[in-house]
Amino acid sequence: MQSRVRAGEKLTEVAEPRDAMLHFIGRIRTPWTERKDCPRQGRTDGPECRVEVFAPLAEALLGVEEYGHLDLLYWLDRARRDLVVQNPKNDGTHYYGTFALRSPQRPNPIGLSRVRLVRVEGAALIVRGLDCLDGTPLIDIKPVTCEFTPKAPPKPADG
Amino acid sequence: MQSRVRAGEKLTEVAEPRDAMLHFIGRIRTPWTERKDCPRQGRTDGPECRVEVFAPLAEALLGVEEYGHLDLLYWLDRARRDLVVQNPKNDGTHYYGTFALRSPQRPNPIGLSRVRLVRVEGAALIVRGLDCLDGTPLIDIKPVTCEFTPKAPPKPADG
Repeated sequence: MQSRVRAGEKLTEVAEPRDAMLHFIGRIRTPWTERKDCPRQGRTDGPECRVEVFAPLAEALLGVEEYGHLDLLYWLDRARRDLVVQNPKNDGTHYYGTFALRSPQRPNPIGLSRVRLVRVEGAALIVRGLDCLDGTPLIDIKPVTCEFTPKAPPKPADG
Repeated sequence: MQSRVRAGEKLTEVAEPRDAMLHFIGRIRTPWTERKDCPRQGRTDGPECRVEVFAPLAEALLGVEEYGHLDLLYWLDRARRDLVVQNPKNDGTHYYGTFALRSPQRPNPIGLSRVRLVRVEGAALIVRGLDCLDGTPLIDIKPVTCEFTPKAPPKPADG
């Protein structure tokens, strides 16, 4: 059952609800146009990148400027999805399961970086700490809340 | 602009190019069967939960036992996807954009928890730090690598 909508909350139109279908919510601009140039992992002292949110969702950024760090999820659209065991060093010796690696090649090729928010420019976020190709589709933005008091009152199950 | 279709050429149906499809890779077992009982955020001193990986992907866990912490992604299949501005306290006063909240209600309802790996039991992981309902579909498992030396040699773009 869907949650009820509260007074003053706002809705936007979405496509038909289909199980496990993602909608791209924006686009990421980085300095890297070839995979060989991408850093292996983002660094929060790396170059500034621009996270552009599509217009219908611009209001969903309200309050994001209060956070110093964000978790960004993005879609690695050039990855292959059928690799189970990988040889990241290409040495024929060291093999790791896909779930013991942060390689882009995985059943659901979602990239995740914890980035530093530098500033907000309209419907775009300027961040440091990304590792992906220019043009990568954006899936989600989540604030890193561990450094803050929860905004909502605690629930008994919070323990 | 799309190419014109010529006489005798055939088309098939494809997904919208701005969408991506996820495959569930497993199932999460937690003590919580109602949303009101779920903690607001997982805690690494919370109860043990069981992350079951479907059989065809069991080998993808090779080496995961070397890690103390994992990022888990899961699909919040009861969430609504069209909320842009939310009122988490239900007080009619404090409104936040969806991307300034870790609420399950979001355009792509993916949950993300950084969990502590307690032990591996075959194709299941016992972890602490989850916040989701029993039966939640699993999307991805990623090791938290910041505490370790990278396994692959650095690339020039690593900076």
